[in-house]
Amino acid sequence: MATIIDGKALAAKLDEATRKRVKQLAEHGIIPGLVVVLVGDDLASQIYVRNKERRAKKMGLHSIVRKLPATITEAELIQVIQEYNEDTSIHAILVQLPLPAQINEFHVTTAIDPKKDVDGFHPVNLGKLLVNKTDRTPIACTPQGIMTMFKAYHIPLDGKRVVVIGRSTIVGKPMAALLINANATVTITHSHTHHLAQLTREADILIVAVGIAHFVHATDVKPGAVVIDVGMDRDEKGKLVGDVDFTTVQDRASYITPVPKGVGPMTITTLMAQTVALAEWSGEENG
Amino acid sequence: MATIIDGKALAAKLDEATRKRVKQLAEHGIIPGLVVVLVGDDLASQIYVRNKERRAKKMGLHSIVRKLPATITEAELIQVIQEYNEDTSIHAILVQLPLPAQINEFHVTTAIDPKKDVDGFHPVNLGKLLVNKTDRTPIACTPQGIMTMFKAYHIPLDGKRVVVIGRSTIVGKPMAALLINANATVTITHSHTHHLAQLTREADILIVAVGIAHFVHATDVKPGAVVIDVGMDRDEKGKLVGDVDFTTVQDRASYITPVPKGVGPMTITTLMAQTVALAEWSGEENG
Repeated sequence: MATIIDGKALAAKLDEATRKRVKQLAEHGIIPGLVVVLVGDDLASQIYVRNKERRAKKMGLHSIVRKLPATITEAELIQVIQEYNEDTSIHAILVQLPLPAQINEFHVTTAIDPKKDVDGFHPVNLGKLLVNKTDRTPIACTPQGIMTMFKAYHIPLDGKRVVVIGRSTIVGKPMAALLINANATVTITHSHTHHLAQLTREADILIVAVGIAHFVHATDVKPGAVVIDVGMDRDEKGKLVGDVDFTTVQDRASYITPVPKGVGPMTITTLMAQTVALAEWSGEENG
Repeated sequence: MATIIDGKALAAKLDEATRKRVKQLAEHGIIPGLVVVLVGDDLASQIYVRNKERRAKKMGLHSIVRKLPATITEAELIQVIQEYNEDTSIHAILVQLPLPAQINEFHVTTAIDPKKDVDGFHPVNLGKLLVNKTDRTPIACTPQGIMTMFKAYHIPLDGKRVVVIGRSTIVGKPMAALLINANATVTITHSHTHHLAQLTREADILIVAVGIAHFVHATDVKPGAVVIDVGMDRDEKGKLVGDVDFTTVQDRASYITPVPKGVGPMTITTLMAQTVALAEWSGEENG
């Protein structure tokens, strides 16, 4: 029976440390500022943004949600971003994805000042991560939250065989880079991969980010493996479930993250911690 | 018996195409300019730099070698780079590595204007490669040259199992990114990897960049695999050899690159082509 990695409890602990840093900054007259830009009225995005705003306020951050119409042009959106790039009360800019079809996400990501890129999706930040030069560099929050889990649960990475399912900019690619930097042997798999189960069954650590409910079953997992589930899916009854069939896999794994209360809370907690870090780094520069 | 991938012949063909592009640029009054910055008097570096200079002149490029003393400070070197960043006759800046111990290579790489970063080592260019946004983006020449080989020999990559040995900024990491973008399933291995032979024996395509003579033997290779040898090593007699034991592996592989006349000529040819590309892109911007 696997140890269940308690993302919620770990996130609460991390939040406490972040709150202390917020207080320390306050003593220097700095309130970390986060703006979340929401384009259009996608329901899921609205929920995510509301959760981020609530959490930011709870943490004592200066939090703004900037709502923009779905009809906005790319140029107009980039102008809004540039406004926040220059706003010294804002340390962290997050553009909620996905964006409407008329807007190129990459152009928008690239328009964010890398020093305010709290999501870590700007190519210069991704490039620094790839070459393991991450000092004062924001890193994608989901993979970074997973690294915090490994550390908290003393899960060794050096020399371990890791299989990542998914190659997104948000999870798979930065996750792979972090793990290579931690001396793991990393295989990146995706929709074009043949014989996926052969690979996953060899993994000491399996990270699943495909967005398909119950994609990974017990027979796909090596006995004793660590299984990290990044999925936030709905099952046929509309219940929130992960990419991993938790009920059967937990008998086979040594560690497993549940959904909910696994990776999800760690992502938002890491976002808060990184907002504070960006404010700290900007203070260093000015000081 | 494997087909030997003739890097020298393929490079010559590519050079011809590049020369045509040089002529076309000349009609618009543009001569692609490459500066190679050489710090200190490392013998191997001197040879590499001389080869690049000779080739650039042969291709009709404007080629400069800027020799600097081994005692130069980081700040002085960065000042020299900034001079070339602003010099409109220079389209491509290459700083020959390694650099003396007092200089941080990453600081130097980051000082190069990404639009003149002919080596593709600037983090913003690496980040673009990672997220598969490579339009008008310079890419590390060795992996890019290897991709050209795959294309020329019609070696399919989609869904193929690729193992890369080595995780350097120069070869392993950009190579992995290019292959993921080409829909291969990629495993990155390195000095901390356990049971390496188990992994290499599963590879449809094996890319070896470790810098150890004859590191890969026939028993490490899956029958019918494609084997790419990035090594430039010396054997006990001082002869130039690769990381792969060519004599035995060629009986087992379906395709193999020799050393010399394999990856080496493709790298320098790709460097020339990319210098021309940078000149073309700069012309577009001004035009």
